[in-house]
Amino acid sequence: MGDCRDALRVVLSSPRNPLNIGAAARAMSNFGFSRMRVVNAYDVAYLEARSAVNASAILTRSEQYHSVADAVKDCVLVVGTTSLGHRELQHPLRRLEIAGRLIRKEAAAGGNVALLFGSEKFGLTNEEMSYCHWLTRIPTREEHGSMNLGQAVSVCLYELIRNSKAADHEPVARKKALLADTDRITGMLVEATRASGYINVRTAKSTEEKIRRMVTRLHMTDADAQIWMGMLHQILWKLKQS
Amino acid sequence: MGDCRDALRVVLSSPRNPLNIGAAARAMSNFGFSRMRVVNAYDVAYLEARSAVNASAILTRSEQYHSVADAVKDCVLVVGTTSLGHRELQHPLRRLEIAGRLIRKEAAAGGNVALLFGSEKFGLTNEEMSYCHWLTRIPTREEHGSMNLGQAVSVCLYELIRNSKAADHEPVARKKALLADTDRITGMLVEATRASGYINVRTAKSTEEKIRRMVTRLHMTDADAQIWMGMLHQILWKLKQS
Repeated sequence: MGDCRDALRVVLSSPRNPLNIGAAARAMSNFGFSRMRVVNAYDVAYLEARSAVNASAILTRSEQYHSVADAVKDCVLVVGTTSLGHRELQHPLRRLEIAGRLIRKEAAAGGNVALLFGSEKFGLTNEEMSYCHWLTRIPTREEHGSMNLGQAVSVCLYELIRNSKAADHEPVARKKALLADTDRITGMLVEATRASGYINVRTAKSTEEKIRRMVTRLHMTDADAQIWMGMLHQILWKLKQS
Repeated sequence: MGDCRDALRVVLSSPRNPLNIGAAARAMSNFGFSRMRVVNAYDVAYLEARSAVNASAILTRSEQYHSVADAVKDCVLVVGTTSLGHRELQHPLRRLEIAGRLIRKEAAAGGNVALLFGSEKFGLTNEEMSYCHWLTRIPTREEHGSMNLGQAVSVCLYELIRNSKAADHEPVARKKALLADTDRITGMLVEATRASGYINVRTAKSTEEKIRRMVTRLHMTDADAQIWMGMLHQILWKLKQS
């Protein structure tokens, strides 16, 4: 049975300040997590933080990615974090406690889980959110949306390990699809809708995001994803014949 | 009934780094606490943090004390924080969740409660601990005793408000699709896969059942069902042209 400490990937997207990357690494170390992934860091800031004399092992071993898609592709569950309450969200929003329970459950079933943090200033973009199965909100006051990145990571990881005994009692879940597979489904659907004239060229990007959100949100099992891929493969083949 | 946000005094004893004092203030603001007390700050550091151009209201209004005794004298409960597990403690040590419950209880009864944080480097001294009714430990790994001050404050305050906010932030359930609609989706998928040659005539019935099970299992929202119907309608139209 998987431990959520091993299963979790802490994914920082577009962090700007090397101090914040270091603070996130320190929070991870404090709570016993080790896998950090950094997407689109301002190169100088990231390399600076990573090579600092006192850089932690977590920072030194952190992995660099150029897109959220790449950074989460081996994960069966992608959870976005937000401290904003007012933004109109396209995603289910779960309380952090509930989120912790669901994350432990997926980890216990043996899958990798990504916890995604947006940039310090703007949080997650709509495009980044389109890779998330759902979002969790740290219960800060509405008036004070923005939270320090290291503190946000700390609070989330604390919630994950707070009741580590609880993890033993989670029911076993069905194996969920890898994000890489559901994203392939998104790609095939986009292709099929484009080939059939559903997508308007002007609004293509937002339609693609809409389709990705929808597919991701379904959070299908691995078995179902295989069926979808088979069906769509065949439909695409036929569409292209015409 | 007293709210623990009003009742709590966050007491920082001998903080050295003005950035940490600022980070603690920010965590307080994020979670809706406002009363900070600072004991024996290195004067320069504290005054610097307090008068910084972007100092928060909490920092500006924070109170300065020269002893822990003075800083906690109007409190009915003084709780010391520690992230050390190995030190031989003379005090009862309570899990943070239990601590949160007891603090809320005292606050509800109308008393002030102090939550005491030691210096970044050494934690609470024995003398400082002697003012504490008991201690609480943030469940970090033993090997990594020292925790960033702002992060420690964040995690403790989160634990204090975690439950009280619970009721406000239950995710709003999204309207689920009518079974009639998801079954229309099943029908369209079956039609599309048939038109594309995915369905073998001999196994058609079991394939249809498989697709229906899969679609039903996704338990999609009404909004998503509408998108699916739109896409599939267009795909079917195109498939039939060929």
